[in-house]
Amino acid sequence: MPTDPSTVTAAVLVIGDEILSGRTKDKNIGTIADYLTAIAIDLREVRVVPDEADAIVDAVNALRARYTYVFTTGGIGPTHDDITADCVARAFGVGIDVDERARAMLLERHRPEDLNAARLRMARIPFGADLIANPVSKAPGFRIGNVYVMAGVPTIMQAMLDEIGPTLATGVRMLSETVEAGDLPEGRFASDLSEIAAAHGSVAIGSYPSITAEGFRNKIVVRGRDADAVERARQEVVAMLARLRR
Amino acid sequence: MPTDPSTVTAAVLVIGDEILSGRTKDKNIGTIADYLTAIAIDLREVRVVPDEADAIVDAVNALRARYTYVFTTGGIGPTHDDITADCVARAFGVGIDVDERARAMLLERHRPEDLNAARLRMARIPFGADLIANPVSKAPGFRIGNVYVMAGVPTIMQAMLDEIGPTLATGVRMLSETVEAGDLPEGRFASDLSEIAAAHGSVAIGSYPSITAEGFRNKIVVRGRDADAVERARQEVVAMLARLRR
Repeated sequence: MPTDPSTVTAAVLVIGDEILSGRTKDKNIGTIADYLTAIAIDLREVRVVPDEADAIVDAVNALRARYTYVFTTGGIGPTHDDITADCVARAFGVGIDVDERARAMLLERHRPEDLNAARLRMARIPFGADLIANPVSKAPGFRIGNVYVMAGVPTIMQAMLDEIGPTLATGVRMLSETVEAGDLPEGRFASDLSEIAAAHGSVAIGSYPSITAEGFRNKIVVRGRDADAVERARQEVVAMLARLRR
Repeated sequence: MPTDPSTVTAAVLVIGDEILSGRTKDKNIGTIADYLTAIAIDLREVRVVPDEADAIVDAVNALRARYTYVFTTGGIGPTHDDITADCVARAFGVGIDVDERARAMLLERHRPEDLNAARLRMARIPFGADLIANPVSKAPGFRIGNVYVMAGVPTIMQAMLDEIGPTLATGVRMLSETVEAGDLPEGRFASDLSEIAAAHGSVAIGSYPSITAEGFRNKIVVRGRDADAVERARQEVVAMLARLRR
């Protein structure tokens, strides 16, 4: 599909050994993908990297140069393996220190005598960043440039995403229509579908098989930003399937 | 944790618009992560890219240069949006055509008169590649160099992974011990844990919070390849938690 100049793009960067070891199964990628699709931002790439400074810095810099927005999850807690804030500061070439606004947020949850050095790590924010409120456990995320740094715990990440959402520039909404191909095999409709796709360059047409208890089932998805174009392609797909089922 | 020279590394490349749009929730990353951890291969990076040739070629080339193995999922079906095989051929700078071994596999499932042009796309294999058998639906995956190309449908991907597993060089097994920190807050044990981590350089120690119906619960995970070192660090973590709970 040709790139629309009004397209707003994004990448997700998941930071955490626990995802790469399989110990934790990521839920944030799917949540962010759904969220961005709903507000017409095109998620173009996802990366998962370990809790290692060079890997995080390199990924932040590669992605922030390429996409409108970068959303990171993970690594902003109080323990020694939480190094995301420091790495993002390094990626941007700025300093980092305890931020008084962030300290005030932590004091909403912790008594002053409990705000030890480890917890204060959660108030370390790169210079020049805006904070992202955390209604669940107070320790904030932050935004610097086009990079949004969020927690890895799914409920906190979702709350932060809700904070961020209204502030984002959004694109022209991507419309999506699904046509059930049922048990008609992909191999039966693939060449006709290819012709429809070629004739409708402004939409993206995908075919998605899954295995159910009854065997293979296929869905054809037509996506695009022009409602009329999506509808024209969808009708051709429906007609094609009816013809092949005859 | 210092890199062990005997470490065997891997990356996963998930190919598919449907993951980035949120329409399909990926299950393969977690499955491959578990599988590789079990056979002592270090999964070091995951990328998800759209069904676009340049994005796929760039990711294949970036990852295959960096890691021992690259495992791709998605994009090897019969429809026009399945472009993984062509992109992998391009990444390696080799030709691609219908492979007679692959055609024979497809003929185990399809009658010759049903093996149309679209289905034959599934037999297009880069020159010099080995095939990966697909016991579920016959259309094979393949290996070229250090890149393993698998289906996106989870049950087929898992079957292909089982085919590949015994052929892989494996590293020294990564051992993992989990210590339940219960409701003891991360902020209470973070600085002690940091000292333990600093004193045990040959192991990686992570702290993982989750939110349960009863509130935050924390787990501390000690990982390493030397059983004695892991056990020594684990005992210090246990003693530290007992001391803080007193």
